[in-house]
Amino acid sequence: MIRIALDAMGGDSAPEIPVAGAVQAVLELPGSYEIQLVGRRAEIEAALARHPDVPEGRITIVDAPDVIEMGDKPLAAIRGKRKSSIRVALELQKAGESDAFISAGNTGAVMAGSTLLLGLHEGVQRTAIGALFPTRSDPVLVVDGGANIDCSPRELMGFAHIGVVYARDVLGRENPTVGLLNIGEEKDKGNQAVVGAHELLKADKRLNFVGNVEGRDILGSECDVVVCDGFVGNVLLKFYETVAHLFGDLLKREIEPEVLESKAMGRVFRVLDYAEYGGAPLLGVRGVAIICHGRSPARAIKNAIGVAVQAVKVHLSQHIAAEMAGDEAVA
Amino acid sequence: MIRIALDAMGGDSAPEIPVAGAVQAVLELPGSYEIQLVGRRAEIEAALARHPDVPEGRITIVDAPDVIEMGDKPLAAIRGKRKSSIRVALELQKAGESDAFISAGNTGAVMAGSTLLLGLHEGVQRTAIGALFPTRSDPVLVVDGGANIDCSPRELMGFAHIGVVYARDVLGRENPTVGLLNIGEEKDKGNQAVVGAHELLKADKRLNFVGNVEGRDILGSECDVVVCDGFVGNVLLKFYETVAHLFGDLLKREIEPEVLESKAMGRVFRVLDYAEYGGAPLLGVRGVAIICHGRSPARAIKNAIGVAVQAVKVHLSQHIAAEMAGDEAVA
Repeated sequence: MIRIALDAMGGDSAPEIPVAGAVQAVLELPGSYEIQLVGRRAEIEAALARHPDVPEGRITIVDAPDVIEMGDKPLAAIRGKRKSSIRVALELQKAGESDAFISAGNTGAVMAGSTLLLGLHEGVQRTAIGALFPTRSDPVLVVDGGANIDCSPRELMGFAHIGVVYARDVLGRENPTVGLLNIGEEKDKGNQAVVGAHELLKADKRLNFVGNVEGRDILGSECDVVVCDGFVGNVLLKFYETVAHLFGDLLKREIEPEVLESKAMGRVFRVLDYAEYGGAPLLGVRGVAIICHGRSPARAIKNAIGVAVQAVKVHLSQHIAAEMAGDEAVA
Repeated sequence: MIRIALDAMGGDSAPEIPVAGAVQAVLELPGSYEIQLVGRRAEIEAALARHPDVPEGRITIVDAPDVIEMGDKPLAAIRGKRKSSIRVALELQKAGESDAFISAGNTGAVMAGSTLLLGLHEGVQRTAIGALFPTRSDPVLVVDGGANIDCSPRELMGFAHIGVVYARDVLGRENPTVGLLNIGEEKDKGNQAVVGAHELLKADKRLNFVGNVEGRDILGSECDVVVCDGFVGNVLLKFYETVAHLFGDLLKREIEPEVLESKAMGRVFRVLDYAEYGGAPLLGVRGVAIICHGRSPARAIKNAIGVAVQAVKVHLSQHIAAEMAGDEAVA
């Protein structure tokens, strides 16, 4: 039985939203897994009581009386709040009593906690956020989506490898292609880190490197994995999230309500909705950790649970370890 | 009479498109100005002959037998092709025989040529591209849109000042607000350059600095001018240009053709169409230079001509000189 620890105290409407997402998951998502709601027991019980339809034995509660707030300093909070939901959940995984962790709480604390408590695989210089960008067809994975500000060429190469494993294991891509985000196609374009990374990526026989990709290529399915530093990735990710709202507002100004509220239009906006992807995996840690948007609706939490179950089932973490050790990924 | 030199050889369909844009301008845009089509005389004459409706005396031809190709190395091309349209047009402006330059040709060559031949205003460390991003209401100006890869805090501060002058003079904003693009609101977020720039911007009493803005704030009209290095600006600009295409494709899949081809939908897409903004000014040079997209349609060239006329009329270059000299801008 796969065990998914969910931070019941993380996000804008905790514990209601995480609890509702957990309930949606066990009602709608197939598979043999159990959800461990981690947080203040009484509050979680009260939220759960509003869902009388939960199947027996699929959701358990792990008490964690402390809460790391959105404004807390990540490292200090992880060290100081030893009974916080984030820390307790990660310790469960470390102790082998849980297989994955999901949180819509303080992103910095989730990253710091995952790095400290789960540790990084050998060869991983830094953990990175894998952000899925919706496209016309299948989403493209952007690594790093915001964990690391300045990155060395070697670190950027590491993002390529962990991204490739994720694209293979979780997105189902065969021999995933990797592009390096840059401001031109030529190999000598860009800043020093990117020029250095281009050389490393090109020389790496294990990677299916397609060369530099530009901003205009990201949504054009030029590659499965786009590598960039976390500054650029974070700006792009947050920018892209607001674009659907802009479209919605522009349409609202011009188009008849019956068209705007049609099922067809709903499908258009669903493609652009980050909640469809559930959350962004923290790649490179020993284990599975998934970061959700602070404003995640229950549907996003449910989808993140689906991603976590899949990541555990396909042995994502073990495959990343093998990739970083330079071995062929083992099944 | 304002004289606008237009690179007739720049862009994907030269000289047809630049010539068509020039004709559209003199037919549609008010004002007292003359267009100097710079390039191969015979080719320009042939293209002009297809527009018998051009008013007398509004369009002249300046012969320039060389062409800088899209793939040419910028600096070498500017130095080597002394009779190229880009170089000849810039020399006209330097000699006082032209007031502004517009090109949809090799961006690097336009930047290198403008810097070399026009020179930079005192206090300007580097010229920067001012890129207009469409929003729900008025566009936001992003500086730098791609001229400079790595930028020092001082250079970023320079972008703020030249951006403010452009926002005031050309976009008509009063006391324009400035935001620093970053990955969080806190002043200690981001890389060293951005942290340093935050301090400088905050301490600068002449600027209306609103603090850091994130990717999600760019389209939310949080400020008139967004400051960032040219790597991030270029990636964002090119990314944003493709988003309208993605949206169009998604709609095409779902929505009835009569809605899709309606005037109302046309207005939605017009907001997102970069051609509406004509081109991106190269800010900080002594004079006026505007870079257009290589794939600009005639309408984009026409709109760039409108922007150039406005920039000359309001004395943009002189106001940037005054701003960089630390004086109050003079009317």
